[in-house]
Amino acid sequence: MALRGPLLRLLRTKLRNTFHQSRGQSVAVLGAPFSRGQKRRGVEHGPRVIRDAGLIDRLSALDYSVHDFGDLSFHTIEDDEPYMEVKSPRNVGAANQMLSGAVSRAVRAGYTLVMLGGDHSLGIGSVCGHAQQCPDLCVIWVDAHADLNTPVTSPSGNLHGQPVSFLLKELQEKVPDIPGFSWVKPVLSARDLVYIGLRDVDPGEHHFLKSLGIHYFTMRDIDRLGIRRVMEATFDHLLGRKQRPIHLSFDIDAFDPSLAPATGTPVNGGLTYREGIYITEEIHNTGLLSVMDVVEVNPALGPNPEAVEATASLAVDIVASAVGQTREGAHASIEEVPAVKKDTEQLCL
Amino acid sequence: MALRGPLLRLLRTKLRNTFHQSRGQSVAVLGAPFSRGQKRRGVEHGPRVIRDAGLIDRLSALDYSVHDFGDLSFHTIEDDEPYMEVKSPRNVGAANQMLSGAVSRAVRAGYTLVMLGGDHSLGIGSVCGHAQQCPDLCVIWVDAHADLNTPVTSPSGNLHGQPVSFLLKELQEKVPDIPGFSWVKPVLSARDLVYIGLRDVDPGEHHFLKSLGIHYFTMRDIDRLGIRRVMEATFDHLLGRKQRPIHLSFDIDAFDPSLAPATGTPVNGGLTYREGIYITEEIHNTGLLSVMDVVEVNPALGPNPEAVEATASLAVDIVASAVGQTREGAHASIEEVPAVKKDTEQLCL
Amino acid sequence: MALRGPLLRLLRTKLRNTFHQSRGQSVAVLGAPFSRGQKRRGVEHGPRVIRDAGLIDRLSALDYSVHDFGDLSFHTIEDDEPYMEVKSPRNVGAANQMLSGAVSRAVRAGYTLVMLGGDHSLGIGSVCGHAQQCPDLCVIWVDAHADLNTPVTSPSGNLHGQPVSFLLKELQEKVPDIPGFSWVKPVLSARDLVYIGLRDVDPGEHHFLKSLGIHYFTMRDIDRLGIRRVMEATFDHLLGRKQRPIHLSFDIDAFDPSLAPATGTPVNGGLTYREGIYITEEIHNTGLLSVMDVVEVNPALGPNPEAVEATASLAVDIVASAVGQTREGAHASIEEVPAVKKDTEQLCL
Repeated sequence: MALRGPLLRLLRTKLRNTFHQSRGQSVAVLGAPFSRGQKRRGVEHGPRVIRDAGLIDRLSALDYSVHDFGDLSFHTIEDDEPYMEVKSPRNVGAANQMLSGAVSRAVRAGYTLVMLGGDHSLGIGSVCGHAQQCPDLCVIWVDAHADLNTPVTSPSGNLHGQPVSFLLKELQEKVPDIPGFSWVKPVLSARDLVYIGLRDVDPGEHHFLKSLGIHYFTMRDIDRLGIRRVMEATFDHLLGRKQRPIHLSFDIDAFDPSLAPATGTPVNGGLTYREGIYITEEIHNTGLLSVMDVVEVNPALGPNPEAVEATASLAVDIVASAVGQTREGAHASIEEVPAVKKDTEQLCL
Repeated sequence: MALRGPLLRLLRTKLRNTFHQSRGQSVAVLGAPFSRGQKRRGVEHGPRVIRDAGLIDRLSALDYSVHDFGDLSFHTIEDDEPYMEVKSPRNVGAANQMLSGAVSRAVRAGYTLVMLGGDHSLGIGSVCGHAQQCPDLCVIWVDAHADLNTPVTSPSGNLHGQPVSFLLKELQEKVPDIPGFSWVKPVLSARDLVYIGLRDVDPGEHHFLKSLGIHYFTMRDIDRLGIRRVMEATFDHLLGRKQRPIHLSFDIDAFDPSLAPATGTPVNGGLTYREGIYITEEIHNTGLLSVMDVVEVNPALGPNPEAVEATASLAVDIVASAVGQTREGAHASIEEVPAVKKDTEQLCL
Repeated sequence: MALRGPLLRLLRTKLRNTFHQSRGQSVAVLGAPFSRGQKRRGVEHGPRVIRDAGLIDRLSALDYSVHDFGDLSFHTIEDDEPYMEVKSPRNVGAANQMLSGAVSRAVRAGYTLVMLGGDHSLGIGSVCGHAQQCPDLCVIWVDAHADLNTPVTSPSGNLHGQPVSFLLKELQEKVPDIPGFSWVKPVLSARDLVYIGLRDVDPGEHHFLKSLGIHYFTMRDIDRLGIRRVMEATFDHLLGRKQRPIHLSFDIDAFDPSLAPATGTPVNGGLTYREGIYITEEIHNTGLLSVMDVVEVNPALGPNPEAVEATASLAVDIVASAVGQTREGAHASIEEVPAVKKDTEQLCL
């Protein structure tokens, strides 16, 4: 006997509700509209365009409890002369100090935090704040660049190319004291860090990568090994001995410029869309993601509005994937789709 | 002694003719200009734009005997209210019934058939008609979507997202009787089907994929295994025990939207051009391709005419590759290129 | 004690200088503005647009001594009727003879030579001139096409599709005497040659590839094996028995048309940017690159000026990579970045 319309409608409704039971996880979003770690203005609007591309809806559709902390409000320090050739040290230092506190509070409150930059100098505050709560964290830094220059080796003096040098314990003798940075404590050892996506590395950075024995995977390594083995090696190195919280610091310029054109320092030959999603899927699958930075989306760059939208949508996609959206789909809460022929009685239960 | 001009011209002509001896295979093309399995009009013009992109010439250049059956002429059923939330059931049912008969006749006549859609609800008629002649067929469904919802689990009610549910024997108790579908017989077991390219799977579909043990390869699986091993595993599963006819149902949205923008439900992160060609080359190499669907090319979509042309050309490329065009080239009928120096006598033969 | 500003500045300057010590290698650039090996005018401007895209600066930044020989000045031979269907034989022959001499002299002078075409008929002169100095050379021909037709098998009569047939000893009985080519000596055996990137191969070419046992890797092979194993197999074959000079003949149409649109005979499904860079990186890593051709950049083609710029920039990138630019970076001349805290005395040395 065929099922009648009203009963089928009831069944559809019931099924749909079971698809959307909350998973009981809490994700928070925090904007950091800051651009003084580099010279191209516009990247301070990154948090806005990533939200406009639908971030909150996408995360909510994954059935998380999503909390948007809004944007941090940074005060401009007017008197901020370069120190040596390091530009805007006091503004960068103060913004990161504020960010560090906010990240620390969010992690303490139990959220998986998504920090929207802003330029990558914000990695200092984000990692430092995270480490306050999770001193045993490890960092996966996905980027075209190593961001590992010290104020001494930096060719440009822009602090967005230097954050990792402030974080690494092994480099502290080589990092001069910079105004605004007295609060920063190096929280990482070289072995707590893995780079993925490098393809534009300065000589001083290369020297540090090699002399400190940092694990890194350039695009050439991805070409040689494939992204699957790169992720396996990354987790072997960082998580092989023990499980610990992951800080994912994702610079959108890790992607190929054809995918992420609206960014300040694009370099050809970057990650494909699928490689980026694979990285974030795998990190989600560890169950250990604690804080994720998404930085360097700059809506003032890119050849046209479509390019900006594409870059911002890409940022949304990697966040969604990092917190649990899958390409395979999911049906956690469906136990059974009931029969509608022959055995219609079970519908009446 | 060097060869003189007229003799060389003769040699060129002779060689060129030997390159073009017919392979004695017969390929037929059948258009199915139908769009009521989904809500975006325009996909009924798919057969026209794929032909305009040079399909028939490309197939003829492969030295096949090519027969174009033209387009089916579908009658519109005016009184076709939704049943439950299933849209246009009577039109979809009737169009597929007509298609099923036409496919069955073409296969019986000995053709390798290329069916040009139209939307993917046409998979019902195409597979059913094929199975009338070849009950032991297997299906390779290349698609961003699983098209496996039942009328009950479908979030949208569009039948182009449901064709496989009508084909699978294991699902029949869960598929309600829909007006226009009384002629449909489920002809596949779950083990006769492999999906390639999935990346947007609904919860009900995911439940069926898992509970029925269907073999499927998402884009994540392609990222992990590579397309070569995916095809090896596909053939192992479908052909490992015995050789049997292959039905290839290729939704153009399996490709990345950057390659196939003119389609109704694009999803980022799809097949590359080379992966798509590799799939069709490998299927050709089995020698078992019997029917191929190419569906969801919609010239009313896509940002500009170039995007439509690119999508239609891509459809032509995968058809040509599936029926025997190779990237390596071929010289089946050249036994020898004669010498033109020292030993010119052999030219006079 | 923190280091004071002036000392830090001194340190920065000192470090920067050590980054830029010359490697003592000499690279020469030679333009060959020639287009009569095919029918599309414009490719004679290839050398100009590749230089305009910054070639010389990019090579100089790698700390090579770079010498630009400028462009060859080819004389047009007015009376140059087709011979059989071979077009412009006397112009192609004479241009290649001139090129051959120039390449030979540059190699003899100790330069690693980069030859900028022009069309790929120039491969005849470039390889012949190279072989005069290095008779044991091997050739890696990166191209969508095999360029292996003889004047007899060529479907078009364009000599840019035939250069390899003039170079191979094994084919000489099958190559008729063409006006302008009496100076050409076949300098390669079939085993001295490897193709990479093939995807549009004529029947006569396929016959020669197979009957001569030439090693070749089509795009399908790259899809199957991955670019890493393709390069390993290439070097195994060419260098397995002994180290010898490499002639890299790189047709820009080896790349996918989406990357290199400004070329005469584009074919879909080509090399990715990363695969192209991987090929050139690996060739650099052998330490054996002796001459590199970059051909078929045609600024008169391509849909817009950006497409031409992209194609020319791609040419610059592969040259830079072939002569030593790396994605990993380098720090050959940095022995130590001095400490700036605690142990500042060492700065005073």
